[in-house]
Amino acid sequence: MKRIALGIQYDGASWHGWQTQPDGHTVQDQLESALWKFARAAIDTTCAGRTDAGVHAIEQVVHFDTEVDREPFSWVRGVNAFLPPSIAVRWACELMPDANGEEFHARFSASNRTYHYLLHNHATPSPLLAGKAGWVFRPLDVEAMQEAARYLHGTHDFSAFRAAECQAKSPVRIMQSIEVIRRGELITFSLTANAFLHHMVRNIVGSLIAVGTGKQGPSWIKEVLEGRDRSRIAPTFMPDGLYLAKIDYDPKWGLPQEPIQPFWL
Amino acid sequence: MKRIALGIQYDGASWHGWQTQPDGHTVQDQLESALWKFARAAIDTTCAGRTDAGVHAIEQVVHFDTEVDREPFSWVRGVNAFLPPSIAVRWACELMPDANGEEFHARFSASNRTYHYLLHNHATPSPLLAGKAGWVFRPLDVEAMQEAARYLHGTHDFSAFRAAECQAKSPVRIMQSIEVIRRGELITFSLTANAFLHHMVRNIVGSLIAVGTGKQGPSWIKEVLEGRDRSRIAPTFMPDGLYLAKIDYDPKWGLPQEPIQPFWL
Repeated sequence: MKRIALGIQYDGASWHGWQTQPDGHTVQDQLESALWKFARAAIDTTCAGRTDAGVHAIEQVVHFDTEVDREPFSWVRGVNAFLPPSIAVRWACELMPDANGEEFHARFSASNRTYHYLLHNHATPSPLLAGKAGWVFRPLDVEAMQEAARYLHGTHDFSAFRAAECQAKSPVRIMQSIEVIRRGELITFSLTANAFLHHMVRNIVGSLIAVGTGKQGPSWIKEVLEGRDRSRIAPTFMPDGLYLAKIDYDPKWGLPQEPIQPFWL
Repeated sequence: MKRIALGIQYDGASWHGWQTQPDGHTVQDQLESALWKFARAAIDTTCAGRTDAGVHAIEQVVHFDTEVDREPFSWVRGVNAFLPPSIAVRWACELMPDANGEEFHARFSASNRTYHYLLHNHATPSPLLAGKAGWVFRPLDVEAMQEAARYLHGTHDFSAFRAAECQAKSPVRIMQSIEVIRRGELITFSLTANAFLHHMVRNIVGSLIAVGTGKQGPSWIKEVLEGRDRSRIAPTFMPDGLYLAKIDYDPKWGLPQEPIQPFWL
């Protein structure tokens, strides 16, 4: 039995999220169907972070176990041949247990996750960014959003930004970095944390936008965070601009992850 | 009668080019249908540069004449309400004749056009750029392509890069600038000329790629240009990465064009 890891990129606009569903219209279903066609074996995959409907991945990481023996480039080309254009395998590698006999696990071995949220801030929506960016027509004050974002840095109970249906045991997360950058009409929110609660990025983005429009002051974010009450925050923002960008692993695993330039940066 | 100009952005992937066709599945048909629904009057539009099927516009410019009296913002919001998400009006303005009584004309008043070609250069295609960028899996030598591009700068007979069905009277064009820039996996070709022949950008990009892969040396572009023989060039490259980016007009017209950051730069 071999443990294989794959780096996967996808446009989530046309899929009902990552996780398998009876209708088969999810990224996991498409990937497992392509693996089945290529390897002629039923293969169950585990991903680093499940994404919701409409959410994209610049690089999702997946692992699975198989008796099938193929070269890494063969997994890449072979599986891609059976995937739709909106999903692609970027790399594959075989993973041996580490010096202590511990197996690589796409989710449990991950140390940090990075998400980007791409927001288009202009009076009219952009046809070139339809499905690929969120949109706000009111001018946004990026400095106010940057000031507000600083309150979220570090270790906090993020209950205020957690979806009602979130199944995580603890609401405490370590926000390693949170940046808000404007380039012309585009605003990018980049968040890195040890893990994220359900809807956490979209709830944070929605709340920072409430600060950006001037509806709330920057310190309102601090009050909301400390109040731990999700009824006080702005509505969960649209999924269109959300990208699972990078999963960090210990270098001992030797994953062939390359730095990927997001298409808009 | 008023002459109105509009700035239009569109994703060409799902349309059969700019120019009206009996099937109605073109950008012009969609725009004129939306104008009809908003203004309740038949309106014929003239664009600065017709784009082929699959080609996008960051900012196309269009003019039309109408008896209908609306504020500019009303043309923008009202027409957008009847357009699909892949087409949007960014601005509108009313244009008076100039001091000599000359009327503004989207095509004839234009001095220069700028096109970008976005190319994804990686072993596997990117789901996030499907329909939005060309793709070459072989590593490309950007310096060789830059050297080759310099031969195309200035005034030349561009017959070698002209489609057989091109209807222009003269094949002579003035290439004001031509740049090749790499950012990570993305290569952008930016071309500005007084006007372009049919398929000229895609033929130039295809030929520069033949230089980038090493199939041809940079000076081959000079030979091809001077030979004026389109049978010698590389095949017309795919439309996916082609963007009509900017139309230049004399400032006397006062068009409300803003610099637009392409989403990938």
